[in-house]
Amino acid sequence: MARLPRLAALTPDDEGWGFFLCSSKELRTGRSGGEFLILTLQDISAQVTAKILGDVTRLQQEFDAGEFVRVDGKASLYNGQIQLLVSSIRRVYPEQDRLEGFREDDCVLSAPRPIDEMWAELMGRVSAMTNAPLRVLLLRVLTDHEAQLREWPAAQAIHHAYRGGFLEHIVKMAEVGTLVAQAYGANHELVLAGVILHDIGKLQELAYEAGQASYTRDGNLVGHIALGLILVRDAASGVSGFPLQLRAELEHLVLSHHGSREHGSPVEPKTVEAFILASVDELDARIHQVRRAIAEDASDGEFTGWHRRLARVLYKGAGES
Amino acid sequence: MARLPRLAALTPDDEGWGFFLCSSKELRTGRSGGEFLILTLQDISAQVTAKILGDVTRLQQEFDAGEFVRVDGKASLYNGQIQLLVSSIRRVYPEQDRLEGFREDDCVLSAPRPIDEMWAELMGRVSAMTNAPLRVLLLRVLTDHEAQLREWPAAQAIHHAYRGGFLEHIVKMAEVGTLVAQAYGANHELVLAGVILHDIGKLQELAYEAGQASYTRDGNLVGHIALGLILVRDAASGVSGFPLQLRAELEHLVLSHHGSREHGSPVEPKTVEAFILASVDELDARIHQVRRAIAEDASDGEFTGWHRRLARVLYKGAGES
Amino acid sequence: MARLPRLAALTPDDEGWGFFLCSSKELRTGRSGGEFLILTLQDISAQVTAKILGDVTRLQQEFDAGEFVRVDGKASLYNGQIQLLVSSIRRVYPEQDRLEGFREDDCVLSAPRPIDEMWAELMGRVSAMTNAPLRVLLLRVLTDHEAQLREWPAAQAIHHAYRGGFLEHIVKMAEVGTLVAQAYGANHELVLAGVILHDIGKLQELAYEAGQASYTRDGNLVGHIALGLILVRDAASGVSGFPLQLRAELEHLVLSHHGSREHGSPVEPKTVEAFILASVDELDARIHQVRRAIAEDASDGEFTGWHRRLARVLYKGAGES
Amino acid sequence: MARLPRLAALTPDDEGWGFFLCSSKELRTGRSGGEFLILTLQDISAQVTAKILGDVTRLQQEFDAGEFVRVDGKASLYNGQIQLLVSSIRRVYPEQDRLEGFREDDCVLSAPRPIDEMWAELMGRVSAMTNAPLRVLLLRVLTDHEAQLREWPAAQAIHHAYRGGFLEHIVKMAEVGTLVAQAYGANHELVLAGVILHDIGKLQELAYEAGQASYTRDGNLVGHIALGLILVRDAASGVSGFPLQLRAELEHLVLSHHGSREHGSPVEPKTVEAFILASVDELDARIHQVRRAIAEDASDGEFTGWHRRLARVLYKGAGES
Amino acid sequence: MARLPRLAALTPDDEGWGFFLCSSKELRTGRSGGEFLILTLQDISAQVTAKILGDVTRLQQEFDAGEFVRVDGKASLYNGQIQLLVSSIRRVYPEQDRLEGFREDDCVLSAPRPIDEMWAELMGRVSAMTNAPLRVLLLRVLTDHEAQLREWPAAQAIHHAYRGGFLEHIVKMAEVGTLVAQAYGANHELVLAGVILHDIGKLQELAYEAGQASYTRDGNLVGHIALGLILVRDAASGVSGFPLQLRAELEHLVLSHHGSREHGSPVEPKTVEAFILASVDELDARIHQVRRAIAEDASDGEFTGWHRRLARVLYKGAGES
Amino acid sequence: MARLPRLAALTPDDEGWGFFLCSSKELRTGRSGGEFLILTLQDISAQVTAKILGDVTRLQQEFDAGEFVRVDGKASLYNGQIQLLVSSIRRVYPEQDRLEGFREDDCVLSAPRPIDEMWAELMGRVSAMTNAPLRVLLLRVLTDHEAQLREWPAAQAIHHAYRGGFLEHIVKMAEVGTLVAQAYGANHELVLAGVILHDIGKLQELAYEAGQASYTRDGNLVGHIALGLILVRDAASGVSGFPLQLRAELEHLVLSHHGSREHGSPVEPKTVEAFILASVDELDARIHQVRRAIAEDASDGEFTGWHRRLARVLYKGAGES
Repeated sequence: MARLPRLAALTPDDEGWGFFLCSSKELRTGRSGGEFLILTLQDISAQVTAKILGDVTRLQQEFDAGEFVRVDGKASLYNGQIQLLVSSIRRVYPEQDRLEGFREDDCVLSAPRPIDEMWAELMGRVSAMTNAPLRVLLLRVLTDHEAQLREWPAAQAIHHAYRGGFLEHIVKMAEVGTLVAQAYGANHELVLAGVILHDIGKLQELAYEAGQASYTRDGNLVGHIALGLILVRDAASGVSGFPLQLRAELEHLVLSHHGSREHGSPVEPKTVEAFILASVDELDARIHQVRRAIAEDASDGEFTGWHRRLARVLYKGAGES
Repeated sequence: MARLPRLAALTPDDEGWGFFLCSSKELRTGRSGGEFLILTLQDISAQVTAKILGDVTRLQQEFDAGEFVRVDGKASLYNGQIQLLVSSIRRVYPEQDRLEGFREDDCVLSAPRPIDEMWAELMGRVSAMTNAPLRVLLLRVLTDHEAQLREWPAAQAIHHAYRGGFLEHIVKMAEVGTLVAQAYGANHELVLAGVILHDIGKLQELAYEAGQASYTRDGNLVGHIALGLILVRDAASGVSGFPLQLRAELEHLVLSHHGSREHGSPVEPKTVEAFILASVDELDARIHQVRRAIAEDASDGEFTGWHRRLARVLYKGAGES
Repeated sequence: MARLPRLAALTPDDEGWGFFLCSSKELRTGRSGGEFLILTLQDISAQVTAKILGDVTRLQQEFDAGEFVRVDGKASLYNGQIQLLVSSIRRVYPEQDRLEGFREDDCVLSAPRPIDEMWAELMGRVSAMTNAPLRVLLLRVLTDHEAQLREWPAAQAIHHAYRGGFLEHIVKMAEVGTLVAQAYGANHELVLAGVILHDIGKLQELAYEAGQASYTRDGNLVGHIALGLILVRDAASGVSGFPLQLRAELEHLVLSHHGSREHGSPVEPKTVEAFILASVDELDARIHQVRRAIAEDASDGEFTGWHRRLARVLYKGAGES
Repeated sequence: MARLPRLAALTPDDEGWGFFLCSSKELRTGRSGGEFLILTLQDISAQVTAKILGDVTRLQQEFDAGEFVRVDGKASLYNGQIQLLVSSIRRVYPEQDRLEGFREDDCVLSAPRPIDEMWAELMGRVSAMTNAPLRVLLLRVLTDHEAQLREWPAAQAIHHAYRGGFLEHIVKMAEVGTLVAQAYGANHELVLAGVILHDIGKLQELAYEAGQASYTRDGNLVGHIALGLILVRDAASGVSGFPLQLRAELEHLVLSHHGSREHGSPVEPKTVEAFILASVDELDARIHQVRRAIAEDASDGEFTGWHRRLARVLYKGAGES
Repeated sequence: MARLPRLAALTPDDEGWGFFLCSSKELRTGRSGGEFLILTLQDISAQVTAKILGDVTRLQQEFDAGEFVRVDGKASLYNGQIQLLVSSIRRVYPEQDRLEGFREDDCVLSAPRPIDEMWAELMGRVSAMTNAPLRVLLLRVLTDHEAQLREWPAAQAIHHAYRGGFLEHIVKMAEVGTLVAQAYGANHELVLAGVILHDIGKLQELAYEAGQASYTRDGNLVGHIALGLILVRDAASGVSGFPLQLRAELEHLVLSHHGSREHGSPVEPKTVEAFILASVDELDARIHQVRRAIAEDASDGEFTGWHRRLARVLYKGAGES
Repeated sequence: MARLPRLAALTPDDEGWGFFLCSSKELRTGRSGGEFLILTLQDISAQVTAKILGDVTRLQQEFDAGEFVRVDGKASLYNGQIQLLVSSIRRVYPEQDRLEGFREDDCVLSAPRPIDEMWAELMGRVSAMTNAPLRVLLLRVLTDHEAQLREWPAAQAIHHAYRGGFLEHIVKMAEVGTLVAQAYGANHELVLAGVILHDIGKLQELAYEAGQASYTRDGNLVGHIALGLILVRDAASGVSGFPLQLRAELEHLVLSHHGSREHGSPVEPKTVEAFILASVDELDARIHQVRRAIAEDASDGEFTGWHRRLARVLYKGAGES
């Protein structure tokens, strides 16, 4: 049997085997008495829904959600979406399967741009900063959380929801935020600091495992905005002589970055830098959402189907004129 | 000349002298060329507007906003409100004026219940708590901030806006919050802790001087909800072995006590205790507002005039049936 | 075959027979042509979903929604929820089945506290009131509607949705409302009257049969707030010399108890008692909702799943610290 | 001295005497020490602001708000509005002043159409109704409240705020509501009943004296929507055999006529007739508001000044094309 | 086999054949492996859901969505809604099937009133207008778009969603708008023009084919309000000497007819005519929605089921009293 | 007498003469009978309030609002704001006054950056565009409206409210919009076109005379968003072969640039370019507003006074850390 293509390239009737991450697994009872399994499988390029209709009792012992799996199956269309009908499945045995080409990184949905490259760009920006206490603080935060910052998604579901998505979001905001701040003669280093720190509380808000994020106790009870504030306060305490005014401005950026109280910011922007940060964050998330909706839309026309969150259709022809 | 009565008892045509705190002072230019002064004077019982219409150039040198003053004047009605027309004024010379009965405490608008009595009640509640780490944390916070907690108002203008108002608000909430929590079998010690800590960030949000509160830098840029969180986190770090789960629940109480995001809480109540705290805080502020509006209303009918903030009139006859 | 345990204690693979109230019954056509039945069964402790997959044509003749039934079945898990697969079912024949232990009261989902006990507590509170016209009015209303007040749920679905729930809601609010009113020196007998009367219009808004509530014509066209008003006006007319001012305050309590116009109150609270009533009603419903969500949540973590109505997850660990 | 023209025809520099109703009177203290009086004067055609700048101490004894007055004065412009500078004023002595042409009706701001004519039209509509119980009920209500219905304004300030305004509002709504109901084949007699009864509760909500409306106790605590409901329920009880279904529909009309809960209706329209009533009520009030703003606007351009309540300017040229 | 009745008259167990328009067709995979088809069929009187459970592979070749079809089937109830179980289906062969009575018009869901009659009424109204430039403009617009105006529905789904629905909506609004404008002495010809033009942009916003409307590129990117504006501006340019003031008022009517900005009008009504148009449009849509919900409701009681869009139940007994 | 400094540099007690534009003039009656005049005077750098307290009858003949004036006066503080007390004033006689240095441009409040420089930058951006039809269209629009585009303010009062403000807003948005579009790989020429055209309808919405903007008939009845659409449609018609898809995208940008319906956009952004345009427009206006509030704030602290429109105070220390 042939090897299946990358999931982003899967087309109906493709048949074969492949290595994937199984990020969810649910048992359902069919109406005629039998049971079947609904899975989510992902590789570096995309994720798809998969079904196991036969031999369920045995196959469900062979793997768990959160594990890498080896799958035999065939692609088909279901309500206009591609899905994989699985005939055989088992958990990966890393040593043995590596011989057939298994690599963890290939099986985790990831940002399109290489993580090393994004990381280097971000570190370059910070290293070039002239405000010494700010640079020191940022370098410590980045160093302390490097592993998480390189791996995490930016959000559970809404945008940048894949490996490296957090970093991708920060790196793009750093580029845009710096340009905008410079255009307005605002403090671009402060904006850069805001970009890096604005969602840093998510590292404690969420726990991220095997492609799946979940909320921690502090995440639910305290929330990422307040957790970010504490992290910044602690980081500033760790840099001797860190100016109090600068600390207040930094904390203001973290707290106000949702732009308004009804979006969860306990204080609203009161500085030009805070207005820039909230605007750039909002726009980056929005553009990512729009492009993902356009990319995932399988219909023929110039417009996508209805986007529930944005409450509108989106124009797929844009930019080609 | 006779001594004026307490301001709460002032009636039109009362004439005499008295000691007051001058909490605001504004120079206005009259249209016919002359200038006059508008003041706010307070004593322990109330505050009134006062005017200096003659000899302005000389008298305005004699005192500043924020100082205690000795005033000669006569009460009159202006648009249905009592006011004081000042014929003479000078700053207090404490040593000399004490001989005539000047006491700072008599000149500062204050909570009706004695501060020592409220403080003792609060300390009693805390000392009786069975949850040791919580008790230790609260005692430290109370001890560290005793001076402020005894003196401060609860808010700049909306409710409990006088000396001891902060404490009055906490003590009443402690009573009610404990009763409600017990009625529901909720953790009443946790509710009590929430009551004491929920507005603790205001001690850094505001600076309070001579009867006037103003926002600090951190107050404007960080805000009392986030400042309160930091204070709780720091206090918990200072109690060795303070349970992480308890810390999260405490912080949740502080962060969620406005009840919803549009009222400025970055996280919304997720525990029974948090629902109780937000409810008791809201109700206490509302009742205080209603009663003050009724007390200050000078009209004849069963209802007050229009209350702009509550967007309604209030019933003055309630409770007498 | 063994007798099944109480529904609240049912676990997967329990098998046996029991008496229940069937509160809903729906026929569905399966895709492979066959039909099956979806039922809701309840006993005093809980309600569960049940399915009849075989012998449908015959079994559906054997009972109707709203009837007590005798069921043979086996418990299983379906999407994490317990359900009962029914192999045999028939309506109860009271005389015969009483021999096997059938009792109506055991088959209707009910408040945890005994109804007689709650009723006695409420009557005790009213009998102790010093305001004579108010006491007379309340005793008449309670006497006239005793049967309904003892049996009804407090709401169709949102909170206290079981036998005795209406009474449970009133009794708890009476306790809390009295405490709060006393703490604030408000008219606690007026608050108690508001507690008893605030939802009295629901007795005409809803028709309640066999565990199922439905809206009446007046319920839909007039609504419980306005129906409650009429009932209070009529009751006051029946007490000779009932003071007009007291009547207005009572009616105000009924009309304003939702707290604001957007929640359906045509007038908003204008007295301290009305603010207390609206606050206590809201809090009691919210706490009931939170505790039910926590009790029904079957997941492992510290938090419940997403609560659609409250738009948040809830903390299950609260109170244990 | 000449007699002043009707107030609607007053122009700057007109000088003379006239009879008016003084509907408000306020004493203000000028900054240079002197006092002056601000009055509102009205006659059948309009109302204007008036000022008494000299001889205040004596003149303020000569009349009170709510009295008819004889005034000497001169018109002038103040910030683009016409006002009357009063040189002399006294209360009317009816017997003596009638000789000079004083008539109460000429001094009260009134609807443009004669009240008798409007009343006759309304009675004609009701008498022609074929639904007997409805006709009987309406005739009783109209007869019982004839005096108020003929005299009252429709609202304190927003629209139809003059003598006969209530009746004018009902008569025009009766005309339009009937036409619309017939066009849609709806029950036009039910709509007519809704028109007549929708604001009937205002007769108890407000007390109306000498051109000034004020809220009653029941008006503030119960409100006109609920008071209207009670009036309808009582009226229906007084018609033997009044159908319950019809009563529910009538009550629904009264309760839902504000169209939505946030506008104060505790139930929202659920019948075609209720949708028509809410629509016709809203439109009639809006048109009256627009036309009054256009009539009162003194500026030159095609548009009025900013209308605060409607939050827009209005087009004065409309309809002339 | 007998011929099926009109769909509006279909009852469970009716069996036979008929001609319909198939307006949607969707293939679904059943859980036991088999596939089935879900269709929407319509005739002049109603539309129903249909299912093909057997012989799917062959039958799905026999027709497409958007085609007229000949169907053999049997009616049944599914969750309280009537549906058609199809045993055989094929596309219509017009020539041959006309012999058996096939007529396109009978198979398309249509307004209840004959289109020719509605069109004649509308042309009559316009021809009688005295404002010459307005009459000329309207006649041109009507003539240019006659074909579409006669055929189109008024909206995709919310109201008047069938052949001739657009015309039905205009004709009824013309009747009501004229009556209301005359009652208020407003410019009724201007209102009539607003009625005819208010949704004219929908002719470019939507593309309508075989009973199915879809949004065009300009429809999605520009929208019918702005498209209508352009059409009016162009039409006015085509009438020499068309007054600029009249053009502005017309354009204002088109732009403001949703009544407020949050409903999509970039300018809000500033003339009496604009208030009338917005009110009449809203009411006509609402009444149509209410009546359709009542007509389609299959339940027994006095009220319909929950109406999701209107967020309420509706009273079915209204008007019968 | 000395010449006064630029208004931006005026300090209390400065005395002398100067040339200004008088942009408003209002006569007020003082309470002691006398009248005085309130003026707004501007020069290139700022605008101030001025008062004429003496010799009013004669001086008010000497000039009108909208004229350039020669003023003698003295600066003073009034409620913390600088104002000019005018002792003498007359309209400018250009020929004669030029000898003393009068220049129209010096007397009109203007953008800080030279207009010629901004215009050249904008024309440079457009000339460099590679999309030929878009470039042709933009060059025509810019050429046709050059005079207005160089002179007009961006808005009546909220931001960029001075000569050249419109151009300043466009030029800055062009810079930022291009950078952001390039960063996201969006169509930056389309964004540039959107920037230039988004407010183009304001050229017809407003009439601008002597430093004062007022709404035109089309401005009030049609509004700048719809007027901009018509202008774009006409301009596209004037470029032969202008692609329909491009036209739709351009029109979408103009219509959607307020970002949401409640802000007045009849369609909401559906393309990445439209999201960028709305974001950049909002941010540019916001930053201008913040900086103007900071510049105009005369207080001592780190924060401005309360900003009514933004509903917050603003941080003046930002950026200096």
